[in-house]
Amino acid sequence: MKAAFLFLTLTVLPGVTVAQSAPASLAEKLGYARDAKLLIVHADDLGMTHAVNAASIKGLESGLVNSASMMVPCPWFPEIADYARNHPDADLGLHLTLTSERVYVRWGPVASREKVSSLMDAAGYFFHDWSAGTRINPQEAELEIRAQIERAYAMGLHPTHLDSHQYRLIATGKDLFEAALRVAHDYQLPLFVTRDWFAEHPYLESSLTPRDIVVDHTVTIEPTVPAEKWAEFYARALRSLQPGVTEFVIHLALDSEEMRAATRERDTWGAAWRQRDFDFFTGAEFHRLLQEQNIKLITWRELARAAAKSE
Amino acid sequence: MKAAFLFLTLTVLPGVTVAQSAPASLAEKLGYARDAKLLIVHADDLGMTHAVNAASIKGLESGLVNSASMMVPCPWFPEIADYARNHPDADLGLHLTLTSERVYVRWGPVASREKVSSLMDAAGYFFHDWSAGTRINPQEAELEIRAQIERAYAMGLHPTHLDSHQYRLIATGKDLFEAALRVAHDYQLPLFVTRDWFAEHPYLESSLTPRDIVVDHTVTIEPTVPAEKWAEFYARALRSLQPGVTEFVIHLALDSEEMRAATRERDTWGAAWRQRDFDFFTGAEFHRLLQEQNIKLITWRELARAAAKSE
Repeated sequence: MKAAFLFLTLTVLPGVTVAQSAPASLAEKLGYARDAKLLIVHADDLGMTHAVNAASIKGLESGLVNSASMMVPCPWFPEIADYARNHPDADLGLHLTLTSERVYVRWGPVASREKVSSLMDAAGYFFHDWSAGTRINPQEAELEIRAQIERAYAMGLHPTHLDSHQYRLIATGKDLFEAALRVAHDYQLPLFVTRDWFAEHPYLESSLTPRDIVVDHTVTIEPTVPAEKWAEFYARALRSLQPGVTEFVIHLALDSEEMRAATRERDTWGAAWRQRDFDFFTGAEFHRLLQEQNIKLITWRELARAAAKSE
Repeated sequence: MKAAFLFLTLTVLPGVTVAQSAPASLAEKLGYARDAKLLIVHADDLGMTHAVNAASIKGLESGLVNSASMMVPCPWFPEIADYARNHPDADLGLHLTLTSERVYVRWGPVASREKVSSLMDAAGYFFHDWSAGTRINPQEAELEIRAQIERAYAMGLHPTHLDSHQYRLIATGKDLFEAALRVAHDYQLPLFVTRDWFAEHPYLESSLTPRDIVVDHTVTIEPTVPAEKWAEFYARALRSLQPGVTEFVIHLALDSEEMRAATRERDTWGAAWRQRDFDFFTGAEFHRLLQEQNIKLITWRELARAAAKSE
């Protein structure tokens, strides 16, 4: 890899200019100014249900949601795979999945089950949750995420990036993160990592290589935000957006009978939550704020291309 | 096994009675007269989608649909399993599944995939369809249906019977049928077979043992019936119901957005089809016809109990 440097000409005193070199920021690699505000509006969980697919497709077609990732083990993955094949320009990645967090609709491994037994509960689904006692074998996790990627390719897809459902591959420990990174390198796909996570998980920064893309910031809404403050939360996030590349991680679905049934055991990331995300990110206020704040939308495809060019 | 005989007293001439013995019919084993008209109103495909579950539960709770079977590999199986655990008296069996016939929502094996590779397409789902060229390994099919039953038990279920999604285990050949029968015997669960199928598939009759329950007749609506003739088809079937035990194989769902999306590639057994079944079998006309024709509803649980008693 060639290091990417940008020569900055700084005027320090009238009449005296000093040429300095600084590593090119991600924004600069993309051809923007260092202080440009660049945003990926990224819908997660495609394939989980029809209501997620329908809302996410509407979001993508609005132009205001410009990237998304798909859960290969989920029942409606074939529907979104069909969309992806028919919309090769859509910025669609794979949302690598090791958990099945709902109660009434569930999914399990794509890999041969006997080889990934540490990932499954007694019935053969991915665990609802991972507790301190859950012993996930990182080799099995790697085998499983490779199987998910292989299924996507077998179905004719060309994913633009990888990310991790519920951040399990990011936040659980070095072994799982390095497994994910190894897979990302093997498939030459960028893996969503942001420096916002470095302080909490120091192994991220130490495991990353210079070729990896590191998004500057991420924003995602949390259960502490009451429903009536939804738009306010996002508006504030947009008004205070930092220079550089930020990924908004959002969760779209229609608040339909199917989605209510699928998420009825708890409200967090449930049907109404996802409808609120859909309403905001396909709405006029979001569009207006993007313009007002001079925020440019960018995709994972552009990031990957810029990173490849700078190598 | 003790042969079950019923001693019939036939009056052949006034004042002269002759005691004759004839094998007890299924109706008689159940404690009904030989010419009683007994009906299982059986909803298939539970677990396939939320709309199927919601309609089937409504059907079961109407009392007019009195039996059903669940597809273990399907995404919404956990929802119907939860219902089954909370309604232990419901007559719920397992709808053994080896195909994934839809396009936009799909499922695959419960068994470890490497061990059932003859059942899967290149992406790892069950085949959409089986053609003459599809080489299903019967040992693999047996392994898979055992895995489906084991998952059901692991989830706390006590299925009352087994049957075969799309009749694949019945109509594909002797090897698959004998695999299904072996599994049924091992788990001491009745497997749905009717003598209506004997002529077309002679191996059924020759493979069955005296302990197996054989339903006298079955009725299921076919794509040749136009939508507006739906109620007429069923009314005629009820008016011409033969003595003995008949199973109506029906397919319930609500014609919801989810179900329309799940079945949009073709109308057969689609959302509107299933809504029509739901409307008829939960409606007043069906109830009236049952009374008018003196038809009694019976369940697989009753059949299994009667068969066990007669052994």
